[in-house]
Amino acid sequence: MYPNPIQEFIARFASLPSIGPRQASRLAFHLLKKSTGELQDYANVILALHQDLNVCAECFYVSGGKDKNCEICNDPERDQSVICVVEKETDTAAIEKTGRFKGLYHILGGTISKLEPESYKKLRVKELFERIKTSQKEKTPVKEAILALNPTPEGDMTALYLERVLKATGVKITRLGRGLPSGADMEFADEETLGEALDSRKEMKTK
Amino acid sequence: MYPNPIQEFIARFASLPSIGPRQASRLAFHLLKKSTGELQDYANVILALHQDLNVCAECFYVSGGKDKNCEICNDPERDQSVICVVEKETDTAAIEKTGRFKGLYHILGGTISKLEPESYKKLRVKELFERIKTSQKEKTPVKEAILALNPTPEGDMTALYLERVLKATGVKITRLGRGLPSGADMEFADEETLGEALDSRKEMKTK
Repeated sequence: MYPNPIQEFIARFASLPSIGPRQASRLAFHLLKKSTGELQDYANVILALHQDLNVCAECFYVSGGKDKNCEICNDPERDQSVICVVEKETDTAAIEKTGRFKGLYHILGGTISKLEPESYKKLRVKELFERIKTSQKEKTPVKEAILALNPTPEGDMTALYLERVLKATGVKITRLGRGLPSGADMEFADEETLGEALDSRKEMKTK
Repeated sequence: MYPNPIQEFIARFASLPSIGPRQASRLAFHLLKKSTGELQDYANVILALHQDLNVCAECFYVSGGKDKNCEICNDPERDQSVICVVEKETDTAAIEKTGRFKGLYHILGGTISKLEPESYKKLRVKELFERIKTSQKEKTPVKEAILALNPTPEGDMTALYLERVLKATGVKITRLGRGLPSGADMEFADEETLGEALDSRKEMKTK
């Protein structure tokens, strides 16, 4: 129905996460109207992803072209004794945006999936274990691993698995607090969330 | 927060329709994990949009690289006496998918926007008018213009404007029928739709 170049564009872009054929065809017609120079810019930013980026050898976050480690791992100001374990790179970015965490990260690379029993093998759990073990022989050992995983069955399953594996290292293992999200309307919270909020209630300290 | 190549990718892709910064960063990390050859493929399908595509000189749909006209305009089997006027290229594709229309198209290139009073100037109305006029001097004159515009205030406003302009050509002007969408649940139809469905009711012909 569309000429070949558009069909090929759609076939390729429709396979990207949360882009379907309909969205891909909208993109094709949108891009079609740009100048050749602009199309080249789009192509260039895609190609630059491989030319100038590496995976951090320490935490598996992204690092700029020549660096073996990422900016966070390279920062001497960061607290080397806490590692925040996240599923993916964008989770690191989300936590960085809060400005409340000054430790290091470990990108797990996914969670355990119920449908794929072998999925735990793909996670960077061994690397995390070794990293903690190695740190314990150095002057700033890791003392706490924060499991910053999604509050979903998969996240919970992964946390339990990590807890079991990391037990042998002796570090303190914590999970993110659960409760009502900031700005939420209590009336519309699901029972699970409201239950967790009750369980993790805090005493107010009036002076 | 992210290394430069990712920031630049996000800045560029976040400006595309229905992709925001969050979606763009997800795409960046997804693409990052592909092979260099695959990234090249993505870049190539973008660049091919300019190398191998033209805008049809007749209806403004897309045509393959060397053709002046698109496949539809070039098809001698199509009914030259009916022109279906649509807002954008993907609307042509949507109508083609029904398999119920065998005439030609005219891509208007947008609708009149309330917020931009001058937006009617950008539409290919003059081109449509000239096209109909020219056809009337040839052996297969255009007899009907179907205004296949969205059933929205903008679509309605554009249809009224087109009706006024095209009146001088003497062609029959029609709009798509309105009513309940196939597969819909009457209970959840809005009043406007239900009203239109009532107005455009058809007599059932039992034999």
